[in-house]
Amino acid sequence: MAQTRLDLDRIRAALEVIDPVFLASPLYRCDALGSQFGCAVSIKLETANPVRSFKGRGTELVASGLAEQGADAVVCASAGNLGQALGWSGRRRGLDVTVVARRLAPAIKLDRIRSLGAHLELVGGDFEVARERAVTIARQRGIRLVEDSLDVETCEGAATIGLELVGALSAGDTVLIALGGGAMATGVGHVLKALVPGVEVVCVQPLGAPALALSWRERRVVTTESMHTIADGVAGRYPIPAVLDDLLQVADDAVLVREATIVAGMRMLLEHAGLVVEPSAALGIAAILEDPDRFAGRHVVTIICGGNVDLDAYYRWVR
Amino acid sequence: MAQTRLDLDRIRAALEVIDPVFLASPLYRCDALGSQFGCAVSIKLETANPVRSFKGRGTELVASGLAEQGADAVVCASAGNLGQALGWSGRRRGLDVTVVARRLAPAIKLDRIRSLGAHLELVGGDFEVARERAVTIARQRGIRLVEDSLDVETCEGAATIGLELVGALSAGDTVLIALGGGAMATGVGHVLKALVPGVEVVCVQPLGAPALALSWRERRVVTTESMHTIADGVAGRYPIPAVLDDLLQVADDAVLVREATIVAGMRMLLEHAGLVVEPSAALGIAAILEDPDRFAGRHVVTIICGGNVDLDAYYRWVR
Repeated sequence: MAQTRLDLDRIRAALEVIDPVFLASPLYRCDALGSQFGCAVSIKLETANPVRSFKGRGTELVASGLAEQGADAVVCASAGNLGQALGWSGRRRGLDVTVVARRLAPAIKLDRIRSLGAHLELVGGDFEVARERAVTIARQRGIRLVEDSLDVETCEGAATIGLELVGALSAGDTVLIALGGGAMATGVGHVLKALVPGVEVVCVQPLGAPALALSWRERRVVTTESMHTIADGVAGRYPIPAVLDDLLQVADDAVLVREATIVAGMRMLLEHAGLVVEPSAALGIAAILEDPDRFAGRHVVTIICGGNVDLDAYYRWVR
Repeated sequence: MAQTRLDLDRIRAALEVIDPVFLASPLYRCDALGSQFGCAVSIKLETANPVRSFKGRGTELVASGLAEQGADAVVCASAGNLGQALGWSGRRRGLDVTVVARRLAPAIKLDRIRSLGAHLELVGGDFEVARERAVTIARQRGIRLVEDSLDVETCEGAATIGLELVGALSAGDTVLIALGGGAMATGVGHVLKALVPGVEVVCVQPLGAPALALSWRERRVVTTESMHTIADGVAGRYPIPAVLDDLLQVADDAVLVREATIVAGMRMLLEHAGLVVEPSAALGIAAILEDPDRFAGRHVVTIICGGNVDLDAYYRWVR
């Protein structure tokens, strides 16, 4: 079994802690999409919940732990979805939640963070600037900093998706996972390698923000100077060494896709599956589009990880 | 308890027969939508499954019954969603499925019926013409005719949605149900009146296809000469007397909404919930839009019953 920081028993126990509204998300075969590619495509839909992304699975673990410890405040840096999810999980436990985000994050994500009652602090620059600022706030206020992908709860929360996939998978099937900081890939990958080891775990990252995928390929941390991608949810430049170590244990491949293919993937998810998704959620379909022969005749599961997208931008991309 | 043709024990037993891919659909609070209306809005999402509507719940019961009896063929008239669902349920049980539909039904629905391997026969005129033709085919071939809303399996299948709502409802809450032939309204209504009788069951039909709502109001079957609505999924002119009798037992109100409001509801579901829905699925939101004071401060559940919509028409309506 893969040796990572994650623990299968804790992941199973997480099912008892996470609010059921985030669990047992839809998993279904989409024939219309599959017939476009000549393979069987299953959709794991993580957008039909109050925060429209899978991040609530992890923040439920974080916030319930904090509540047990009697903590009253928490801070995170977020591309937008983690902040919403932490806002949601924190609000119902009476936690004071601070979120640091990029000023240029999608307005829909920022608005929702505010509407959940979280304190939102905006910074210039990219996600790494937000991360530094969150570290400072945590230190100054002496409160818990939630670090996506580094904090094992964020990985083990995401890993519960894997538990929900196991029954539908056989050896030779492929699961396509959007790769950002690595929480979803290491989480789902850990569960799959433990329970259905013949399943191929393929991570997908944008060519324009390739740091963790390149790190996986070179088996050492590779950082990048800048990022250029519409997939705001997966854009980071500094992979976390511990996360890379885990990813090396559980991923079979790390694929990079072009921006135009991400857009094409979003369009296909709309036209053939009726789903409005954010760019990160189209990475899996983009991977099939760029290499259809690889997946021909196979069963491929793609995790639709988030649906928080500004509609103006969406129309501009998709039409 | 309401005396209808439906039976709560059979509805509970249906959970063991219906393929799980249609069950336990997402149910979640949508704050972004609720804040637009000053009420709490919960979404029951029936589109995240292989046929993108709730109809699979009923066709699973029909098809499993036919398979048990050793039948090998079945026919139905359909506005499009029932045909898809029967195609799906019939295919996996080796049934020869014939669907009669309007030539002008949404292309997306007709294409999917064909791609599921069903025989598709197209007729001119409206749904009632298709219904007559299906009756003829059933008689000539001596095969089972599935009549939506008349056949109790279609109502009891839809009624399983009600079982999934019960835990989230309290007296004083409202459930908004699209009203077409009446299967969903009588099914869900039967369960709610039995298990949480203080919940208000409100059916919603387009002003342009008001036959069953008018019948409910007048407590007798009212037919109409014609129909003018974009909500193709709920367009019928001849209410079924037995269904009306049931509806009179379980519905607290039958509301009619304008076409422009249905479009506005579709737009709100896209902008505030990220959902692409067919017109019938926006009837509940349309009812809130036309009478927001009625729902202010309350908890309202709207069932998003289908997502099969031609994108060209959708863009035309929503933009």
